Formats: sequence, C-alpha cells, structure tokens
Amino acid sequence: MVPSRSPINQVDVTLSERDPQTRTRLLQSAVQIFDRKGYSAASVREIAEMAGVTKPALYYHFGSKEGLLIAILDAAVHEFARTVSTAVARTGTARERLMALCEDVFNLFEVNIPIVRVAHTVFLGPVEIAPAFDLTKFERIWRESLQQVIEEGQAAGEFRPVPSLDVAYALMGLVDSCVERQMHPGFDPVGRDGLRKIVSLLFDGVSCERRS
Amino acid sequence: MVPSRSPINQVDVTLSERDPQTRTRLLQSAVQIFDRKGYSAASVREIAEMAGVTKPALYYHFGSKEGLLIAILDAAVHEFARTVSTAVARTGTARERLMALCEDVFNLFEVNIPIVRVAHTVFLGPVEIAPAFDLTKFERIWRESLQQVIEEGQAAGEFRPVPSLDVAYALMGLVDSCVERQMHPGFDPVGRDGLRKIVSLLFDGVSCERRS
Repeated sequence: MVPSRSPINQVDVTLSERDPQTRTRLLQSAVQIFDRKGYSAASVREIAEMAGVTKPALYYHFGSKEGLLIAILDAAVHEFARTVSTAVARTGTARERLMALCEDVFNLFEVNIPIVRVAHTVFLGPVEIAPAFDLTKFERIWRESLQQVIEEGQAAGEFRPVPSLDVAYALMGLVDSCVERQMHPGFDPVGRDGLRKIVSLLFDGVSCERRS
Repeated sequence: MVPSRSPINQVDVTLSERDPQTRTRLLQSAVQIFDRKGYSAASVREIAEMAGVTKPALYYHFGSKEGLLIAILDAAVHEFARTVSTAVARTGTARERLMALCEDVFNLFEVNIPIVRVAHTVFLGPVEIAPAFDLTKFERIWRESLQQVIEEGQAAGEFRPVPSLDVAYALMGLVDSCVERQMHPGFDPVGRDGLRKIVSLLFDGVSCERRS
C-alpha cells in the first residue's frame, strides 16, 4: 500500500515537479538504483538526486520508496499483460503461436533486464523487506495464456492430450532459464535462436521412442 | 577472498570456541539470518548471537561476513557436486539416469531452500555487494554432467542427435523452475511427481507430429 501523501510534502513540491516527466524520470532512476544497490540499500535521496528532482517531488508522486517500487512493478505487469495478450491473439498453428509467445516474453524481459532483476531479487529476497505487491501476477497471466493456446492446440489435434498445466510450467521454465542466462555476466547467453531451439525440443521430444 | 585474520581476534577467542561445533553453529545461524534479512542487511553481531558464540569466534573461523557466505557456498557446491556425480554413476537407460539426476538435484535443493534462496539473491542481486565467489560453478557441474549422460544416450541410439547443450539447458530450466515453485509461498509447489511429469514431456515431446 502506498502511504498517504502528507500535506507537508504537497506544499514543498513546485508546480513544475508535479508533471509526468518528473514521474517518469523518478521511475527510471529508481530502477537503476534498485538494480545497482538493491532495494533495501537504495535511498530516496539518491533516487531524487539521480532524477534531478527534489525529495518532496518523489513523495508527491509515489508517497515512499515502496510506492516507487510498486509503481515500477505495476507498469511492468501492465506491459507484460499487453505483450502476452497480443501474442495470444496471433493467427497460426498453436505451436507457432506458443513459439511467438515465448519469444515475445523473452524479448520483453531482455530489454528490461534491470526491472526483471529487481523483481527477481524482491520476489526471492528476504520476507522482511518484501513490498506489498503480488508478484505472482506475472506468473498467473503467463500461465493462463499459455494454457489457453496449449488447449486450443490439443482441441485441434496438434498436441498430445497431456495436462496443459504441465506444458505451461515447462514452457515457463524454459523461457525463464533463457532469460536468467541473459541476466548474469557469468553465463553464456543463449539468445533468441537458442530459445527457439530449446523450446522446439519440448515440442518434438528428445527420446527416439515415445513412452506415452 | 577471505580477509586475513587479525591477531586481535585470535587472542580474543577461547579454546572452546575454536572447535568445529562452533564453526557449524555459525554456518547454520548465518544461513538463517542471510535468508531472513538478506546478506547485506545481516550483521556479524546477530549471527554470533544466534549461534551463541562471541564475535571474535566468528572472525576466528571465517574472517568476515563475506568469509562466512563463501564458506556456506563452498560447502553447497561440494554437496551439489557429490550428489550429481553419484547420480551420473548410476546404471540404467540414459533417460532413467537423467530423470534420477533431475530428481536428486531437485531433492537436494528442496531440503536446502534457505541456502538456494541466499545463493539466488546474491547471484541476481546488486553487483556492489556480490561476494568473491564464482556461482557459475553450480551451473558448470550441472551442465557438464547432464551433457555427459545425454551424449551417452545419443551414442546408444536412445536420444535423437540434437545438440546436447540445448537438452542440458532445457533440463536445467525445468528443474530450476520446479525448485523456484517450492521456494516461494505464492506458488503452487509442483513437488517431485510434478517434476517427473514435466521432465517426461521433454523426452516424449508435446506435438503429435515431430518436425525434426
């Protein structure tokens, strides 16, 4: 929950700092500082400084450091949902649509690595500093969209009648691990081609003889 | 790198605190506190307090907070390597051995969730606080062992001649995502049965018709 804005902060904020550009600059600075220092170590002062605005301007737009993180994650969920629903609405075979969905999510994550990393560390990080944001939203949107296309593919006789939830989990795992490889300098990134090859393995199978 | 132990710390440590039990207690307390508060927020004082030992005892055994984290991760890599090499040495088909390898790694992670979470947050966390420990060691051991069994399966005509590295990446992604589901209270855990079903999909494939 974003703490209510105190009247003191309101009066301290100049009119020019109430504009959307100030808000955007604060969001961009916060992502960079949360990513570099970690959410708990980041200070409101340095975020405002990097954005070139006053601390009251930060409180005016976001209420608190937590409000800033929640605004970042809200925007990310919104963009994620948009990307996923656009990909699901595509035409083609279920396999083509799932591949496009995996690639689009991979691309979205790849161009937003700092946000993905911040979300990851908050999600997996200490419970004591976890902000009031339901990070499972990403997972739910992602899983439900995948299951929808998988079930359409099964109805069309394109996929075998295995539980769609298992296939969705498998695809999520494959995309996530490709994204994690892009995220850390110690790994060889697999890139978009690598992702396609890895996801194809799930469609075609690795064993010569199928068991089920 | 573990900072050298200062002579001041040496003299402050009683003989009884130099024993291996003190070392073990400090490791256990550190895992709990790193997991609960995050590595950067954790203090040497509270780790020593929880272990019921003095701060000089901590410095005597580990030199610093970073030394303590590195000792935790070193022990984890050691146990991981042992689990993986035991699984690789099993008899059976390549598919059975890979399944056992995935299950054993999943089980090891599951009983060590706090350490896995600490390693994850340090690995993905801010570069400014990353300790001098090569976390890609886990990935290398895991990947090379998987590739070995995959290539043995290909040589035996059990698996299709796809790049073993892609199959290894796929298996690592599937196991990792099942572990992550166990790690966060917001997710439905898939458990060991879920893992088996998901990994089986990669062997058998999801599409009715294979493309390659």
